[in-house]
Amino acid sequence: MTPLEAKPHAFAGVFSLLAPHLAELDRFLHGQIAAFEPEIRAMADYCIDTSGKRIRPALVFLGGWRGPTVITPELVRLAAVVELVHLATLVHDDIMDEADVRRGRRTAAREYGPTAAVLLGDALFAHALHLATQFPTTEVCAAVSESTRRVCAGEIVQTLRRGSTDVTRADYQRIVDLKTAELFRVSCLLGARLAGSEPDYVAAAGDFGRHLGIAYQIYDDLVDFFGEETRIGKTLGTDFASGKLTLPLLALLERLPAGERAALTGEITGKCPPQAALRLGQMRELGVFTAVAGAVQTEVALATTALRPWPDHAPTPLLLGLADVLHAQIDGLRPRACA
Amino acid sequence: MTPLEAKPHAFAGVFSLLAPHLAELDRFLHGQIAAFEPEIRAMADYCIDTSGKRIRPALVFLGGWRGPTVITPELVRLAAVVELVHLATLVHDDIMDEADVRRGRRTAAREYGPTAAVLLGDALFAHALHLATQFPTTEVCAAVSESTRRVCAGEIVQTLRRGSTDVTRADYQRIVDLKTAELFRVSCLLGARLAGSEPDYVAAAGDFGRHLGIAYQIYDDLVDFFGEETRIGKTLGTDFASGKLTLPLLALLERLPAGERAALTGEITGKCPPQAALRLGQMRELGVFTAVAGAVQTEVALATTALRPWPDHAPTPLLLGLADVLHAQIDGLRPRACA
Repeated sequence: MTPLEAKPHAFAGVFSLLAPHLAELDRFLHGQIAAFEPEIRAMADYCIDTSGKRIRPALVFLGGWRGPTVITPELVRLAAVVELVHLATLVHDDIMDEADVRRGRRTAAREYGPTAAVLLGDALFAHALHLATQFPTTEVCAAVSESTRRVCAGEIVQTLRRGSTDVTRADYQRIVDLKTAELFRVSCLLGARLAGSEPDYVAAAGDFGRHLGIAYQIYDDLVDFFGEETRIGKTLGTDFASGKLTLPLLALLERLPAGERAALTGEITGKCPPQAALRLGQMRELGVFTAVAGAVQTEVALATTALRPWPDHAPTPLLLGLADVLHAQIDGLRPRACA
Repeated sequence: MTPLEAKPHAFAGVFSLLAPHLAELDRFLHGQIAAFEPEIRAMADYCIDTSGKRIRPALVFLGGWRGPTVITPELVRLAAVVELVHLATLVHDDIMDEADVRRGRRTAAREYGPTAAVLLGDALFAHALHLATQFPTTEVCAAVSESTRRVCAGEIVQTLRRGSTDVTRADYQRIVDLKTAELFRVSCLLGARLAGSEPDYVAAAGDFGRHLGIAYQIYDDLVDFFGEETRIGKTLGTDFASGKLTLPLLALLERLPAGERAALTGEITGKCPPQAALRLGQMRELGVFTAVAGAVQTEVALATTALRPWPDHAPTPLLLGLADVLHAQIDGLRPRACA
């Protein structure tokens, strides 16, 4: 279970509408196994896990929304492309993070070893981009391959900055924009494009996706400090423990007096053991939750603003519904964060 | 320096003709650095190393040969695509093999750490496929992305079989066909295709490339036992030491009496330390070199046969010249192998 699924009822509105689309996507994805070489089909099947939250496919279907009964093969294929790219990045992430478990079962790296997992992630990438060539023009494949490169660039920058306190808010924004917002953006944009929307709406849908992606990543970084493990379904506090300087930590650094700031710097750089409970308490006292939640809301508002000129377009109310979900999720964290 | 460069004079004929093409490719590849995000440009530049043998680009240029002064932008772009895919696989291979040095300098994994190197390989793949979308149709990108998946599948199979003696000749053929012959095949085929050759010749060029690729890989596996490090420029005996069951070892296993076979099996599976000198001596005594060199020549002959119906097509004599080089390279190993 992942953060956006933590309150399934909050999603009920948008995601129950999408149920037939996502079921069709699952059928399509499982049908892709046969495209892999026989020797690696079982491994590809293991990675093409359909238990995730499918937020990028949801953006594809919502961006190209034409009504609850309209499920076009083009949107299903595009949803599969972006989901496969995302799954490939997860396979590689889990190697690098030495993660044992994802979504309640062993990661591909633990199941098949890191070497096979590197190659398996590569094969998933390659197949995603192969699927992307099954459109009449090169447009989808060009956009998705460029996005993939940008996602990797974002993750590289983040990796190289691990354990460093020389990270500014601008650096953080840039990392988030590349590693998360990019694939949200392209999912929404290409969904609208394939559904035949006018160019201005396509661009607006891309802007919406980008800001929603930034909001989602900041929310996810906030959950790492203020979430409840039982509700969120993943180990929390890992960003701090691994020296990843996310917005909550940046905001705390800005607010601490010099002496304390130096101590926290030592914890981030790995010179001293991280004092998670102390830092969480300081975050509560110094209003870090409110400040970072405000940053999420700002991005949600920017996403919403992008669609304001098009209230009557079919996707608009549904995309705004998705933005509302994130808004509500933040409120769900508040009691614990401000306890 | 790599095996096919070991005797530069043998290459002089074909490769001196290609010098302007390869120089243009180098310019093009260095021009691609600007397409990467500013934060990863220096790293991409480090990986886009132009000191390699460029055999896949050579196959592109030769497959699409129209004379020494004809260098089309399409062939240069295609050559860059296949070389970038190859460089990406090398970046990932070097992580998995924990290699320190390639072509006389630190591998990307040693220079930037394995985590960044996984992502950097991904970014190179993504950019290769993005370049492949810069043709009028999806054909090039579809073929290259499919080939990339097959290369990965071959490497996965090889990885999972490491340290296993349950590998047949058919398994070995399959691994070689996927991990090496596939990209040779598609380089040659798409080169001919972009140059506007008739469909039958395009298919024949693909067959030529495939068999040359198989021949090349078997040759490379033979070099690992019978090459001279000073001439080849890389550490030899690594396949045996890492439990990789290549054709020379398979042929030796077939020839050894039962007791010795069991001992060698123990060395391959890692139960006993590999006795490299003993096994090399046995290979010499039991005619392994001659048998495996024969397998190379068989594949070279199959490559040559594929082009026989088209003696007057411009690429034919040059592609055959490349096949002759491999033939000569095998002869160059003979004195040491049969000493």
